[in-house]
Amino acid sequence: MLFRFLPKEFSFFDLFDKQVDYAVDASNYFKDLVSKGSVNDASLEKIKDIEHQGDDVAHDIFDNLNKTFITPFDREDIHALAKELDNIIDMVNTITSRLKIYKLSPNDKNLVEFAAVISDSVGAVACAVKGLRHSKNPKAIQESCVEINRLENVGDSMRDAIFAELFEKTKDPVAIIKWKEIYQDAETLLDICEDVTHVVGAILLKQA
Amino acid sequence: MLFRFLPKEFSFFDLFDKQVDYAVDASNYFKDLVSKGSVNDASLEKIKDIEHQGDDVAHDIFDNLNKTFITPFDREDIHALAKELDNIIDMVNTITSRLKIYKLSPNDKNLVEFAAVISDSVGAVACAVKGLRHSKNPKAIQESCVEINRLENVGDSMRDAIFAELFEKTKDPVAIIKWKEIYQDAETLLDICEDVTHVVGAILLKQA
Amino acid sequence: MLFRFLPKEFSFFDLFDKQVDYAVDASNYFKDLVSKGSVNDASLEKIKDIEHQGDDVAHDIFDNLNKTFITPFDREDIHALAKELDNIIDMVNTITSRLKIYKLSPNDKNLVEFAAVISDSVGAVACAVKGLRHSKNPKAIQESCVEINRLENVGDSMRDAIFAELFEKTKDPVAIIKWKEIYQDAETLLDICEDVTHVVGAILLKQA
Repeated sequence: MLFRFLPKEFSFFDLFDKQVDYAVDASNYFKDLVSKGSVNDASLEKIKDIEHQGDDVAHDIFDNLNKTFITPFDREDIHALAKELDNIIDMVNTITSRLKIYKLSPNDKNLVEFAAVISDSVGAVACAVKGLRHSKNPKAIQESCVEINRLENVGDSMRDAIFAELFEKTKDPVAIIKWKEIYQDAETLLDICEDVTHVVGAILLKQA
Repeated sequence: MLFRFLPKEFSFFDLFDKQVDYAVDASNYFKDLVSKGSVNDASLEKIKDIEHQGDDVAHDIFDNLNKTFITPFDREDIHALAKELDNIIDMVNTITSRLKIYKLSPNDKNLVEFAAVISDSVGAVACAVKGLRHSKNPKAIQESCVEINRLENVGDSMRDAIFAELFEKTKDPVAIIKWKEIYQDAETLLDICEDVTHVVGAILLKQA
Repeated sequence: MLFRFLPKEFSFFDLFDKQVDYAVDASNYFKDLVSKGSVNDASLEKIKDIEHQGDDVAHDIFDNLNKTFITPFDREDIHALAKELDNIIDMVNTITSRLKIYKLSPNDKNLVEFAAVISDSVGAVACAVKGLRHSKNPKAIQESCVEINRLENVGDSMRDAIFAELFEKTKDPVAIIKWKEIYQDAETLLDICEDVTHVVGAILLKQA
């Protein structure tokens, strides 16, 4: 029996590693895109490709969850973790699409700064998630979670300052509508990374 | 003992059939309303009536869930399904109210098109939900879920195209604020229908 | 063994009492702030202080939940209740920050009215939550929940009327963008209070 369950347990870690790698790919590609300053059909296609591959892994996780009796940690935590990682990739796709639909030039100093913070945060998410395989040694995971929380606070302050500036300097209400949504989405992406730390924290506490 | 539990099990299916019928009523009424081109107090009243009747069924489901030991499928799935069906009806009510509050004429070609897709999607939701009673024969349910997912993708593309057009052609920022919210809500309604397929999929997998 | 578990059970009630008191503090401070008509750095600091203290209690609840075997009511309900109370305090903080960032004068007759309804609703939330310690005697809890639901309906009607007025009278689109978000947040705060009644209702039904 042991043989029957062990490989399944391990496959969850492999699937999460794969899924979080797609989240890292998406956030890094977004950082490059923003600093280069243009979103075209090819860049949207690239992000959508990553999203579809990430979706496939998420579905694999959900399917395995419904079919597996023994899981490496609580079923609800596995479900929540896969959902949050999926949300990260979705949000990168959403922001990129909006930049194109709104015909905004992404080469905006505030967005460049936000994209760097997002990429750092998703990198820390990858460290935390990959650490779960060795959760008896939680120090590296905890350090990543502290960093993700710090970056979420950085993002909150950035958004507040950017909003104040946007309403102060921009005279065109339509430009306000567009950019307000972009920056809000960027900050929400950091909130989603913070949600990952809540799931990871619950997993660690239960195994302590 | 069997006699004591069986009727309760069956009543969940009956309650879901009733609740999803209200969702169908709401979306069909909305489609008619939009094609006729005016929202008045009577139409709002009608939608609110349907919403209240749907609320009553949802409360019945939640009450029975908290009082019943044996349920036809997982308690969390019953809760999630009733919640999502409730969200569908709520969202139809929200859009209708907004049209009235914003003094918009709903006879807008884009909204007419969206309302038709919504009505189709909620129809497919009804097929999927009513099929759960015969979940050992899941083919019809699965086909409905595929259709709901297809219509969600259709809605995504419609919203992107409509947003691009809205920002391109509309000069009045206040009109942009209003219509952007209406179309966004319409697309969210299709997302909620897709959420139903996730719950239904989990139910089918667990019973496979 | 009994000695080992009883104190832990009781501590959940103590923690919830503490958390809901912070929610009451936040909503009362907000009501005062709005009627006085100005948000400065000191007022933001005060709200953030309350939020941090509330956060600490929420973390205490989550930590205890993950470490305790026997809980006074379902684990998922404890988690949901702490989350909703946290959401109340967060939302008060969000609205207060926005008023400052958007440079709005909060002394707006509509917002004053909303703040009074919010303060009443959070007061009723406190009665409901504190009543859980005596849940075998649910009448006071149920009355509070009825009141919270009534106030949510009041808030819905207020928001609809305020939105109609805003779009009717305000000519500046940027002012519409700002105030629309403030009023929407105010109404969402009442929705969160209503979410508390759903959790409380589930707890009562399971103990009936």
